[in-house]
Amino acid sequence: MPFDRLELRSEHGCFGGVQRFYRHASHTIGLPMQFALFLPPQALAGERVPVLTYLAGLTCTEETFTMKAGAQRLAAELGLALLMPDTSPRGAGVIGEDQHWDFGVGAGFYVDATHAPWSGHWRMESYLLDELLPGVADTFALDGARAGLFGHSMGGHGALTLALRHPGRFASVSAFAPICAPSHCPWGHKAFTGYFGQDESLWAAHDASALMATQTAAPYPGGILIDQGLADKFLAEQLHPERFEAACEAAGQPLTLRRHAGYDHGYYFIASFVDDHLRHHARTLGAA
Amino acid sequence: MPFDRLELRSEHGCFGGVQRFYRHASHTIGLPMQFALFLPPQALAGERVPVLTYLAGLTCTEETFTMKAGAQRLAAELGLALLMPDTSPRGAGVIGEDQHWDFGVGAGFYVDATHAPWSGHWRMESYLLDELLPGVADTFALDGARAGLFGHSMGGHGALTLALRHPGRFASVSAFAPICAPSHCPWGHKAFTGYFGQDESLWAAHDASALMATQTAAPYPGGILIDQGLADKFLAEQLHPERFEAACEAAGQPLTLRRHAGYDHGYYFIASFVDDHLRHHARTLGAA
Repeated sequence: MPFDRLELRSEHGCFGGVQRFYRHASHTIGLPMQFALFLPPQALAGERVPVLTYLAGLTCTEETFTMKAGAQRLAAELGLALLMPDTSPRGAGVIGEDQHWDFGVGAGFYVDATHAPWSGHWRMESYLLDELLPGVADTFALDGARAGLFGHSMGGHGALTLALRHPGRFASVSAFAPICAPSHCPWGHKAFTGYFGQDESLWAAHDASALMATQTAAPYPGGILIDQGLADKFLAEQLHPERFEAACEAAGQPLTLRRHAGYDHGYYFIASFVDDHLRHHARTLGAA
Repeated sequence: MPFDRLELRSEHGCFGGVQRFYRHASHTIGLPMQFALFLPPQALAGERVPVLTYLAGLTCTEETFTMKAGAQRLAAELGLALLMPDTSPRGAGVIGEDQHWDFGVGAGFYVDATHAPWSGHWRMESYLLDELLPGVADTFALDGARAGLFGHSMGGHGALTLALRHPGRFASVSAFAPICAPSHCPWGHKAFTGYFGQDESLWAAHDASALMATQTAAPYPGGILIDQGLADKFLAEQLHPERFEAACEAAGQPLTLRRHAGYDHGYYFIASFVDDHLRHHARTLGAA
C-alpha cells in the first residue's frame, strides 16, 4: 500500500548517498508521522539494497540517530539503507501525553496499546510492521525481504521484542543498552501499565527476556549482538541484560553481549560501536 | 598560564578515548567560556599528541561538531586531540547581543572587536591564540607545537585568517565551505562593521582572500584543503571560494578546492568529508 501524502521535508548529500527526512499521513496511527531514510549510493544506482531499521530511545525522534551516530559512512560502503522511525505518535491531543519524558509522546515503546486512551493512536508495532516498513521498501525499491532491526534503550527493547514476536520478518537483530526485561524495571512498569493495563500476565508478550524464555530453538542462529556500557547510569535499575543473557543461554540462542568499561548510555557510546552493528547485520543480510 | 576555575561538565567514553566538555573563567573574554575536547586513546596512554582545533559556524556551540561530524572515530585511530571552542562570548549583557543569528552571540567571527560595545568581551582571536590553545596544551599535556586548524563557514573564515595572521602557529589548515572574502559578502559586512567600524581599509587584515593576496611565498607549502558543496544555498552570496582560489594561485599557494555536487552547507556534508581533513592534518602534524 503506497504512503498517503508522502512529503519530502529535506534531503542532504551524505557519503555519496542521500539522507532524507519524510512526513506522511499514517492510517495506522491516524496522524502524520515522520521518518528519516538514508539511501546508500548503491540504491541511488538502482540496486535493491537491504533495509536496516533503527529504533530510538526515550525522548528521541527520527533525527537523533541520523544526526549523532555516524552510521551513514559504513552503511554507504556496505550498501545498506537505514530507516529511522519516530518514537511515538505526536499531536494526538491525549490528555497528559507530554507530561512525562518516559511515557506518552517520545515513549511509544513500539507496542500497540490496548488500553484507553492510548489505544486510539499508540499503535507503533502495527505502524512499523504493516505500514512503514512495507511502504518504504515499496516506495524506494528496497529489498524488504532482507531486513535487519536494531535500536537503543527503549528502541533496543523494541528491536528484540519485535524480532522475536514476528519470526521471519527480520533476518538480523542487535541492540545498544536495551531495556531487556521491561516487566521488571520502572520504565517498563510505567509504560506497560499505561498501554496494557495492570494485568502483568499480558506483559510477557512484550518482554524480550520473557519472550526468549519461551523459545524452543534459537530464533537467530547467526547470533544476537548487544553492546552495553558499564558507566551507563540506567544499567542497574532499568536495563537488566543479565536476564536476557540467561534466557538466551537457556534457549540455546547465541548471544554476543559485550560490556564496555567507561561507556555511558549516550550517543558517543553508540557511535563508538555502530560499525560493529552494521557489519553484524550486513553479514546476515548479504550486503557488500 | 593555567585555566582559572576549570570545571569538567561531562565526559563520555568515545572510540577508546574520551569526549569531555569543560567550562572555565576566561580572563581574555571576562566571562565563563565553554569548550569540548576529545582525547584519543594515545593521549590517555600518556603520549603527547598533536592538537587539531575546529572552529564552528554561525549559531553553533562547542557541541555542534563534537556531536554531528563523526570525527572522533578517525581521530582516535590517528592519535589526534580535537579541540572545539565555542563561537562567541555568551552572557555579556551587551544590548542587542542576541537579536541577530549572524551577529553577536554565536557569531564572534574569531576576531578581537575594536568597536564598542563589542570590544569589551568579543576578543575571540586573543582568547583562542593566547589563552585557550596554550591552556589546553599545558593542562592536558598535548603537543601544542604540533597544531592544526580547521573550521566551517564562519569557522572556515576563522581557520584561514588565523592561520595566515599568525605564521608558524598552525602547521596545517583546512576548511569546509568557508567565508572566503568577508569584505565582499553580507555576513562579513555586518560583522566587520559591528566589530571594527565602517572603515573598510581595516577589514582586509581579517579577510582570507585579502590576506592571501599579500603573501610573497606560499605560507602552507604542504597545501590548503577546502571542501565546498555545490547545493550550498549560501555559496553564491556569502562564501566566494573563487576569490580565495585566485589569491592562492597568485601567491603560489597550493590549494585543493573540491566542489561537490549534491552537498549542502550542513553537517551531513561535513561528516562526509571530515576523514579527508583529519588525514590532511595528520600528514603534516606527524600523527599516526
